Amino acid sequence: MNNDRLILITNPGSSSRKYALYRGSNFLCALHFEFEGDKIVYTLKKADGTKNKTETKFTTLNEVVSGLEKILVDEQYIGGPTKLDAILARVAAPGSYFAEDHIVDEECLAQLETAKARAPLHAPVIANEIEQLKKTFKETTVIAISDSGFHNSRPELMKAYAIDTEVANKYDIKRWGYHGLSVGSIARYMREQDILEEKMIVCHVGSGSSITAVYNGKSHDTTMGYTPLEGVMMATRTGSMDVAAALAIKRELGLKTDDELEKYLNKQGGLLGVSGQSDDMREIIRLRDEGDSRGVFAHALYIYRLQSAIGQMAASLGGVDALVFTATIGERSDDVRRRVVQKLGYLGFTIDEAKNTGDMNERQCNIAAVGSKPIYVIKTDESDEMIVRANDLLNKI
Amino acid sequence: MNNDRLILITNPGSSSRKYALYRGSNFLCALHFEFEGDKIVYTLKKADGTKNKTETKFTTLNEVVSGLEKILVDEQYIGGPTKLDAILARVAAPGSYFAEDHIVDEECLAQLETAKARAPLHAPVIANEIEQLKKTFKETTVIAISDSGFHNSRPELMKAYAIDTEVANKYDIKRWGYHGLSVGSIARYMREQDILEEKMIVCHVGSGSSITAVYNGKSHDTTMGYTPLEGVMMATRTGSMDVAAALAIKRELGLKTDDELEKYLNKQGGLLGVSGQSDDMREIIRLRDEGDSRGVFAHALYIYRLQSAIGQMAASLGGVDALVFTATIGERSDDVRRRVVQKLGYLGFTIDEAKNTGDMNERQCNIAAVGSKPIYVIKTDESDEMIVRANDLLNKI
Repeated sequence: MNNDRLILITNPGSSSRKYALYRGSNFLCALHFEFEGDKIVYTLKKADGTKNKTETKFTTLNEVVSGLEKILVDEQYIGGPTKLDAILARVAAPGSYFAEDHIVDEECLAQLETAKARAPLHAPVIANEIEQLKKTFKETTVIAISDSGFHNSRPELMKAYAIDTEVANKYDIKRWGYHGLSVGSIARYMREQDILEEKMIVCHVGSGSSITAVYNGKSHDTTMGYTPLEGVMMATRTGSMDVAAALAIKRELGLKTDDELEKYLNKQGGLLGVSGQSDDMREIIRLRDEGDSRGVFAHALYIYRLQSAIGQMAASLGGVDALVFTATIGERSDDVRRRVVQKLGYLGFTIDEAKNTGDMNERQCNIAAVGSKPIYVIKTDESDEMIVRANDLLNKI
Repeated sequence: MNNDRLILITNPGSSSRKYALYRGSNFLCALHFEFEGDKIVYTLKKADGTKNKTETKFTTLNEVVSGLEKILVDEQYIGGPTKLDAILARVAAPGSYFAEDHIVDEECLAQLETAKARAPLHAPVIANEIEQLKKTFKETTVIAISDSGFHNSRPELMKAYAIDTEVANKYDIKRWGYHGLSVGSIARYMREQDILEEKMIVCHVGSGSSITAVYNGKSHDTTMGYTPLEGVMMATRTGSMDVAAALAIKRELGLKTDDELEKYLNKQGGLLGVSGQSDDMREIIRLRDEGDSRGVFAHALYIYRLQSAIGQMAASLGGVDALVFTATIGERSDDVRRRVVQKLGYLGFTIDEAKNTGDMNERQCNIAAVGSKPIYVIKTDESDEMIVRANDLLNKI
């Protein structure tokens, strides 16, 4: 069993390209490409924490992949006998195919085309990145790691919409769930630390957010569905809403296509839509503290939706033994944690305020008051989870 | 204060017209018009329980209103000095206007036109009925009773979608909630009986279903939204689903318009869609007991969605003191009640099986086991609630 491979993880966004290089699970460096003015620059962050910025000749982000190998050679991370063993890409796309990890081959590339049509907002960036990597790094195994895979363990009930079963099966219209790598990394870590509880609710609260019911370390239920639009209120996503209300928005605003509607609900809703000012929770908290009425309302709605989802997951588990907060907001915002837990006394949760606001030096911290069920804050590690999953796959070959 | 008025309540459906006549809150008779072959017949049900069927010359249900007065005269319910004081119509339509009761006037008729556009599946039948009643019964006060009104007491948070606040306000895109008359009748009755608890969850489980959090007798939160499509799984409605999944259904099935999609989700989902065989819970239970796999799945999904919504409402209330089941399935199906409560032990609920399956001779019955928080089965009475509300309005004039 070889778990010491040289692995590059890609993480493309709409306005950046990020790569991280690992040997085994040891971080070697990160490359972050983004525009500065009309130039694309990259920042190299080394394992020792030093950073270095370099200007490139690329004029579009799509060119980055073609120059990546040379940069890694120049920076002496690869070259000669030192070759990349694998490149990993996280895929969040609806469908049974992408509910599993795959070594990218012709079939996978074809499935990525289907995914682009099914999830025009979520799939194209990663699909294009994978296509380019596959073309450029001809000798290297490229692996599509599923962000839904962790949720495969859910009972079929939790994957279903209340629609014609044949339609659901034929067109893969099911609740695939996302943030599986994040919640999977939390579950794995808690098992390793021997702090896993039977019935847990993991709140991944970040720019995208979802609440997952974890039963004995496995996903039992989750709030995201066919796409990451479903569930709680997020930075710019509405979360769940009456489909008829969404269609009313389309009609009243005169949106021309369904894609426009889906984009509106994904990009113009959530904290941004309700506050009318910001999609950043820190800014929303500032607005709230200044008494801005839309800021106050956005913050309160966000908390209420998180509480509702936690209640829903508690019912799904038939009770809950531990609560976990993770991802940027979950890890960093004592304010959000305090407000969410405030109404969860009926489930046995009370926060210790000193612990909640204290520094978090370890990966995990239990912020529960004496007598409360555990409430953990745990740093998520999706990269580590991807490497573990890739090694599982590569060791089987 | 006059609460002894002669009041006719209309209840038009897609394939029937039903009317009920009351003096004060005393039931006098019911008229049920429906097709038998190509003839429209009506069944007159009197207060003493006797029934009588008569053939009419109507060829469409739209003609019923024009002949209604003559029938009531012929049957000796009105005529001479005995005149109708008011006709009541329940309106379930999105918008702030129909979140209040209104004596039907020109403005109300104009608002009904708006409602038809906003809720093409729900509003047109009642809107047309009201228009016809208003034209035909020129001397009688016609009142539109809001099915959302009970939910006005909810905090604004529970009425909001996570969308642009200005868009929500301008176009009334909010969570109006429905089944307000039913839940209102339950809350009023429980207060009268002195069995109202501080934090209650009322499960209106019928052909349409919704779960309402009731705080001190007032609506605090509810699962239906802009239209009755949102929330739990119903007889033919999907309930909540990822908007992107709904748009995927439209794309994959080649549905041409948003109205077609909305109709599909309202008419082809729920028990009917999942089972592929029936929208009737009794039939679903029969299929389940026969081991029909889609019947088993439909039943289980239905129960799971109810439990999830109860969990959500428990979080909204910050705990729960009593559970109430009402409406056809809630009142009659010991099977559904048993299965729903089975996983709610963590909230303090356990059913007494003898009470659950026993005859229900009174309007209410507490089926909780010893040591459990109360679990009531209570017969809903929307007609009584409409009469109370109409009298409130008429006594103010």
